[in-house]
Amino acid sequence: MPPTECLIEARWIIPVVPDGLVLEHHALLVRGGRIHDLLPIPDAHARYANVERIELANHALIPGLVNAHTHAAMTLFRGLGADQPLERWLKDYIWPLEEAFVDHDFVRDGSQLAIAEMLLSGTTCFNDMYFYPDATIEAAIEAGIRLVTGLVVLDFPTRFAQSTQEYFHKGFAIRDRYRHQKRIHFTLAPHAPYTAGESTLLQVARFADELDLRVHIHVHETKQEVLNFIEQHGCSPIQHLERLGLLTAGLLAVHVTTLEPGDLERLSQAQCWVIHCPESNLKLGSGFCPVADLLQAGVGVALGTDGAASNDDLDMLGEMRSAAFLAKGLTRDPSRLTAREVLNMATLASARALGLDNEIGSLERGKAADCVAIDLATPATMPCYDPVTQIVYSAGRQNVSHVWIEGLLKVQNGRLLSAAAPGMADTVNDWRDRIASQLGALSPSAAPQASRH
Amino acid sequence: MPPTECLIEARWIIPVVPDGLVLEHHALLVRGGRIHDLLPIPDAHARYANVERIELANHALIPGLVNAHTHAAMTLFRGLGADQPLERWLKDYIWPLEEAFVDHDFVRDGSQLAIAEMLLSGTTCFNDMYFYPDATIEAAIEAGIRLVTGLVVLDFPTRFAQSTQEYFHKGFAIRDRYRHQKRIHFTLAPHAPYTAGESTLLQVARFADELDLRVHIHVHETKQEVLNFIEQHGCSPIQHLERLGLLTAGLLAVHVTTLEPGDLERLSQAQCWVIHCPESNLKLGSGFCPVADLLQAGVGVALGTDGAASNDDLDMLGEMRSAAFLAKGLTRDPSRLTAREVLNMATLASARALGLDNEIGSLERGKAADCVAIDLATPATMPCYDPVTQIVYSAGRQNVSHVWIEGLLKVQNGRLLSAAAPGMADTVNDWRDRIASQLGALSPSAAPQASRH
Repeated sequence: MPPTECLIEARWIIPVVPDGLVLEHHALLVRGGRIHDLLPIPDAHARYANVERIELANHALIPGLVNAHTHAAMTLFRGLGADQPLERWLKDYIWPLEEAFVDHDFVRDGSQLAIAEMLLSGTTCFNDMYFYPDATIEAAIEAGIRLVTGLVVLDFPTRFAQSTQEYFHKGFAIRDRYRHQKRIHFTLAPHAPYTAGESTLLQVARFADELDLRVHIHVHETKQEVLNFIEQHGCSPIQHLERLGLLTAGLLAVHVTTLEPGDLERLSQAQCWVIHCPESNLKLGSGFCPVADLLQAGVGVALGTDGAASNDDLDMLGEMRSAAFLAKGLTRDPSRLTAREVLNMATLASARALGLDNEIGSLERGKAADCVAIDLATPATMPCYDPVTQIVYSAGRQNVSHVWIEGLLKVQNGRLLSAAAPGMADTVNDWRDRIASQLGALSPSAAPQASRH
Repeated sequence: MPPTECLIEARWIIPVVPDGLVLEHHALLVRGGRIHDLLPIPDAHARYANVERIELANHALIPGLVNAHTHAAMTLFRGLGADQPLERWLKDYIWPLEEAFVDHDFVRDGSQLAIAEMLLSGTTCFNDMYFYPDATIEAAIEAGIRLVTGLVVLDFPTRFAQSTQEYFHKGFAIRDRYRHQKRIHFTLAPHAPYTAGESTLLQVARFADELDLRVHIHVHETKQEVLNFIEQHGCSPIQHLERLGLLTAGLLAVHVTTLEPGDLERLSQAQCWVIHCPESNLKLGSGFCPVADLLQAGVGVALGTDGAASNDDLDMLGEMRSAAFLAKGLTRDPSRLTAREVLNMATLASARALGLDNEIGSLERGKAADCVAIDLATPATMPCYDPVTQIVYSAGRQNVSHVWIEGLLKVQNGRLLSAAAPGMADTVNDWRDRIASQLGALSPSAAPQASRH
């Protein structure tokens, strides 16, 4: 049985709220899965004398990272089609492989792998969009990770559903089955304005309103997609979403690498959220999300990794670093998107985007004890002048030593405490063998790189 | 005593030469510090029956990574002035701190820390430019890492040297003392065209020619620097270097984020090398090196991290990933700078830039046994369809399990095998305390982030 109380003592605690505060030699008292107190270590020893202590002498404690956009199960396609033009990546790899392989088992096994990777790199909550969301939910419940799952909707058939209505029906059935589960939350997830037509999006808007669900959707991923949409519909996808009543504070617009005139004001006035996925946008050559402009216009920006087929990892520490570097590089201004701002983006802002900021996103009394310890006493993270700078620019997922979700330890000294772990490699390699042989059959040129012997 | 022979057996061996080859289930026989053979594992067992075997069942073996530009000792300034405008970073942090602290001990201790970080992340050779190069040489000899050290020259006084002539004299004295050391090589390192004037650069050109030394210099780091130079000299720094006879196949031009008309052709015709430092350029907002254009024009491009005050790590695996992502992002073309090309850039191309490709840069018979094993059986690197893609886009320095330099094991199962390691943390923290208190004294606003308690 897990202890109902423990005292986490750290060299630094970065609560994120209040913004910019760094506490030194403080302790966090966890009671019943929640943050009960946050105080200097000597005071903690006096007040909570008989509580189990976890001493983290060289560590920074931060809120659990919140991955605001991913397709977890796509870990099983990790790296496939890398370095290919976008069209070939989709048509020779992702689409035929999804058609051939994506079923309930695939999504469960891929989600387990993704969750292992995310926990080990300090992510305690993720916002997912993929087929068979019930399989991802089962993996999340088993691992005890927090999940916001998208009820995916498309206007074309897949193995998961044959019609738009079947997507809705299956999605709502899954929601009904799991909606009372702790730590499992839901969004409506129409794939994109170009794959979910007007009547589908109108239904999404109605259901979002009736069921009080947020809407998770890819928006303006590339310039070409936006130009094609304008040619067909006479307006940008963002304008289109506005007309259909979907530009609201509950919209999670993923990517947004390009804006048409007036779109920035539309997003700002409606208080929409933009989910920034810098590494996926770089790797696919999609364009650059104008983060600095969005923030300046008051648009909330959260951070996500996207799936492992276009990143190729689910590492939010790395994503913070890439986001900050890219914002500085693009504006030629090293003071843009500071370490403090990007840590906020990956924790509190992502939690707010998902509507979970009453529960997670900062280390405040009363919130769930979702937290991550980062060891800064390694050759690559010494000397430490400022732990926030060090976490974002020098540390990496290898520095994640401990991860708690609702006070339960999930990672200890960099190792996953999970029953799923031992058999996972074999399962993943079985999928690898099946997928690799299918790739060879689909198209010789798409097979994994030729090798001798 | 180290064994004179060992057999490294790996799931994959990526020799880099021939380009694109991936060998499966092969073994590399090391004899007397050199690569003696490379053959399938069963053949190796038959031919070398009584040799010590190192079995790496889930690993890829690659050539040691070559960091083509760094200022190793600046690890002691890691992260200082992050998120500050460039001018403040230099004037409030780097310059006054260098004036106050940089001496022989600083450079030795900072270089030891840098070498620990580099070995742990798979770097087996680095091209350095900093004051007190003898201190870096001593640290490199002690650790057994391969070093190309720059004999730094500036037209203004520092603690290291009071005049241009003293820089030359000290540099040559250091070269005379260490030039017969194995694994220690030299360049002439005038800081930049704007800090080393015409007569200094003419001397550099003469010495480079007489002593057969390459010239390592910052060139076109920012657009503003180039515009200022043109205003003062009527030509771009690259044109200036051409006039002084420094545009040769021995020029290592670091950064090159901007090119004036004709400069690309100049670099190409003279067969100069460009050293690309993508993360430093991003973090300082310096601009973007036009890598795709350079490669297309036939200019050789090598890869470096720059110093830890502007990166803030010395991680060549991360640098490869950033370089590839950035090239794709900037050109909107995911097929640019492939994983294979960037691995080549960080190994063979960097070795060629330094004039060491007869010795290192690929796993070929007769070359030094500088090699790195990367464990790909972790949740973040499974499944593996293509080890090259996986190394560049999914793996990180945490996957580096073994590192050899001339057949001697430096890192084993992710741990540094070095005498310097135990006392290093205390030494680094002493420097941290002195530097942090000086920062407070220099300028209250430049002190590390305020914290409570």
